[in-house]
Amino acid sequence: SQNSLSPSRKPSKSGSSKGGKLILKTAKGTRDYHPAEMAVRRTVFDKIKSVFHMHGAVEIETPVFELKEVLTGKYGEDSKLIYDLEDQGGELLSLRYDLTVPFARYVAQNKIDNISRYHIARVYRRDNPAITRGRYREFYQCDFDIAGAYDLMLPDAECLQVIHQVLASLDLGLFTIKVNHRKLLDGLFGACGVPIEKFRSICSAVDKLDKSSWCEVRAEMIGEKGLDEAVADRIGEYVKLNGKQDLLNTLKNDDRLKTNEDAQAGIEELELLLQYTSLLQCDANLLIDMSLARGLDYYTGVIYEAILQEGQVPQQQQESDNSKKKSKKDEEDDGGTVGSVAGGGRYDNLVGMFDPKKRTVPCVGVSFGIERLFAIQERKLKLQDRKLRSRLTSVYVAGVCKGMLHHRLTLCALLHEAEISAETSRKINPKFLTQLQYAEENGIPLVVTIGDSEVSEGVVNVRNTSTRQEEKVPRDQLIQHLKQLLPQL
Amino acid sequence: SQNSLSPSRKPSKSGSSKGGKLILKTAKGTRDYHPAEMAVRRTVFDKIKSVFHMHGAVEIETPVFELKEVLTGKYGEDSKLIYDLEDQGGELLSLRYDLTVPFARYVAQNKIDNISRYHIARVYRRDNPAITRGRYREFYQCDFDIAGAYDLMLPDAECLQVIHQVLASLDLGLFTIKVNHRKLLDGLFGACGVPIEKFRSICSAVDKLDKSSWCEVRAEMIGEKGLDEAVADRIGEYVKLNGKQDLLNTLKNDDRLKTNEDAQAGIEELELLLQYTSLLQCDANLLIDMSLARGLDYYTGVIYEAILQEGQVPQQQQESDNSKKKSKKDEEDDGGTVGSVAGGGRYDNLVGMFDPKKRTVPCVGVSFGIERLFAIQERKLKLQDRKLRSRLTSVYVAGVCKGMLHHRLTLCALLHEAEISAETSRKINPKFLTQLQYAEENGIPLVVTIGDSEVSEGVVNVRNTSTRQEEKVPRDQLIQHLKQLLPQL
Repeated sequence: SQNSLSPSRKPSKSGSSKGGKLILKTAKGTRDYHPAEMAVRRTVFDKIKSVFHMHGAVEIETPVFELKEVLTGKYGEDSKLIYDLEDQGGELLSLRYDLTVPFARYVAQNKIDNISRYHIARVYRRDNPAITRGRYREFYQCDFDIAGAYDLMLPDAECLQVIHQVLASLDLGLFTIKVNHRKLLDGLFGACGVPIEKFRSICSAVDKLDKSSWCEVRAEMIGEKGLDEAVADRIGEYVKLNGKQDLLNTLKNDDRLKTNEDAQAGIEELELLLQYTSLLQCDANLLIDMSLARGLDYYTGVIYEAILQEGQVPQQQQESDNSKKKSKKDEEDDGGTVGSVAGGGRYDNLVGMFDPKKRTVPCVGVSFGIERLFAIQERKLKLQDRKLRSRLTSVYVAGVCKGMLHHRLTLCALLHEAEISAETSRKINPKFLTQLQYAEENGIPLVVTIGDSEVSEGVVNVRNTSTRQEEKVPRDQLIQHLKQLLPQL
Repeated sequence: SQNSLSPSRKPSKSGSSKGGKLILKTAKGTRDYHPAEMAVRRTVFDKIKSVFHMHGAVEIETPVFELKEVLTGKYGEDSKLIYDLEDQGGELLSLRYDLTVPFARYVAQNKIDNISRYHIARVYRRDNPAITRGRYREFYQCDFDIAGAYDLMLPDAECLQVIHQVLASLDLGLFTIKVNHRKLLDGLFGACGVPIEKFRSICSAVDKLDKSSWCEVRAEMIGEKGLDEAVADRIGEYVKLNGKQDLLNTLKNDDRLKTNEDAQAGIEELELLLQYTSLLQCDANLLIDMSLARGLDYYTGVIYEAILQEGQVPQQQQESDNSKKKSKKDEEDDGGTVGSVAGGGRYDNLVGMFDPKKRTVPCVGVSFGIERLFAIQERKLKLQDRKLRSRLTSVYVAGVCKGMLHHRLTLCALLHEAEISAETSRKINPKFLTQLQYAEENGIPLVVTIGDSEVSEGVVNVRNTSTRQEEKVPRDQLIQHLKQLLPQL
């Protein structure tokens, strides 16, 4: 392997020393998810999934690693961030870098003509992420894609509807969905005098406008990418434009663009998109933005990115660190620029790269920056001083005095039989107060208490954890009583 | 890397040839999960999770890879099955082999005193699995564990209760939960004259009794493991025993065992376990079985394994293939022997292996052979000629004639607004019959149809896909009508 002679091979860097002292940590750029975090994740996933199901999407899952070859040539210079598995004899394998390329492989391999699928899973990038800003080497992606030959802009409009519905259901406040079109961009580049072989690299430069000033981007175009100053300045006039139908009208009649076929085709598609999204009631937050370019090479049509309005994003997430080199593409797929929580577009040629007969299936999709959405929800809960319950127990069974273990176990079995979640102490004679405290700390709404006198009377006490009120209930009426009480709590 | 010069490095074996012809496949021993399979998985997971939540368990997640060091020395000779990541500079990493060792690392690292957690995730073993029998290199494990210092047998009984509840809720028919105790086994080995240094290797031999005859196991003990014939024959008398309290009574008074401290301690704990599981109403299918040994070294107390009764396991899963060498441990963790669907036990020392101060946290847990449970559910559905719906759409919006696109999109938006899942064709003018066929094929219960006359009358038709009956509904009453109708379908 490439680095086998590098000093980093020393065991001291591999998480342990020869002395047997294990450094107890997770791998760099990864983390454990604790119960409270998992509870937040569950609610976010559930909301997003219910939007996907609203559109008739099905779920698939692919392996965490692919043949190395499958990923080769898909990610440009960021291929260096791919995790390879060691060659232990057999196939050469790599951990997936995103969910889009495995999806294209899935569609090609299974000879699928059309599918709307979602896939929620972790992807792997050997980056040097700013972990303080919530960026990791192992992180979730949450993708919704429509593959299939359909009529122009109908699946594209549906993807924008999905973004709109997801962000609305997560109650994230104001957001903007920026939209652009690769054909319009290419037409623009052509009309401004960019040589065709520089289209993609100039597109990458434009893509940096979300974080850099036009001055910096212009300098990159001229200095690094060798563009004429006049050409760069012409582009500069366009990339500051945004709007809706008004913008499209301007561009349609623009002297440079009106004779450019690519540009006009892009404009026509965007007009259709505006029309459909209006019918689908998801156009309110849409903005056609000529500075949106998206980093990935494989986009062929409409591209988009959803951005939360400033002040609504938790501080930690907003912080921009320009002094550090960041992987532009990483930011992209993970939800895009600062404040960006979803992104995607049309990629009509990716499936064809896998098909032996080059048969392709047009695709359009969206990827949610789910880790950022988690972080925002966690921050919101914190601000509201709220906690999601990570355990879902309804009833705690407590012994008032010693010798109640058998009664407690029997009661637990009774409650479980009735599908009421119930816990009891795993000690023979726990202290009464310790038990009540456990119920309070864990937000268990009801405590069923039992002591010698309750046993002899054939009753139990049902105690409301928050009001601390108790009432006596005959044992044979306990289930019925709880089934009435619990839905009200 | 080790094999960098081996012929297997040739690109032709890595999934592609230089000619550019990509062999379109997933990595060896892995597979894609299709929508219909995902629907089955969802139902199985949901049932299992609801049992875990019944016990107040919380959920955690750990990274898919760990520092190589974390896994080292935990899996004995099966360590060769661990997938290592290539050294690309930095830490040496391996894919997780099970969920137990990462859990112990999690408990130690986070200085947790007690937790009941579940974790459902895929694990990785570079084995040569019998894929026709549903065995893979990447497969799900579904673990429930209780960590913490509690009173004897209370958490252990709870784990048996969880197994009982999960298997009952999945409606798998008759099953047996075999139970044994490592202390009883060790006591037995000692009393029979096994030298102490051979305890673990003799235990491994006993563990093979689920697939091999006593003759074969005896031969292994004497031949490979160098045990005296007389000692082996003494063990042979015990390992054929099984029962409940009756068996424990026999063993308590057995001449060889009655003076053996380990054996008596094990017997006492098992008696307590029988008592608690009886109170928890989960002892009906319990059987103390002296031939149960479990392969993993780290067990220190009660061990158990749940087995479906023959004839209830799908044919494909039952098939036993003695001609091929199998990884015993793999079978174990993945649910154990043929027909086995869950297994686990107490492991009190594993957390201590990670703690710098050797502080340990006693643990007991169970791992469900979830891939087998999926396969059984799929087989059951097939036998019943039933299909689970992989898409959850309630309403399909169909145009009766051309020119209905705008109306269809508006209706979809209206339905989604009311949280009714709805799809419509992504073609401008789809054929009416094609639309109805789509709804039928995908089990979408209702079709809302609209044509020119409906538009002018301000109505739509609501068609029941299975009865094919239609009724006219005014557009402004559509939502109310569907909300009443859908729960009945």
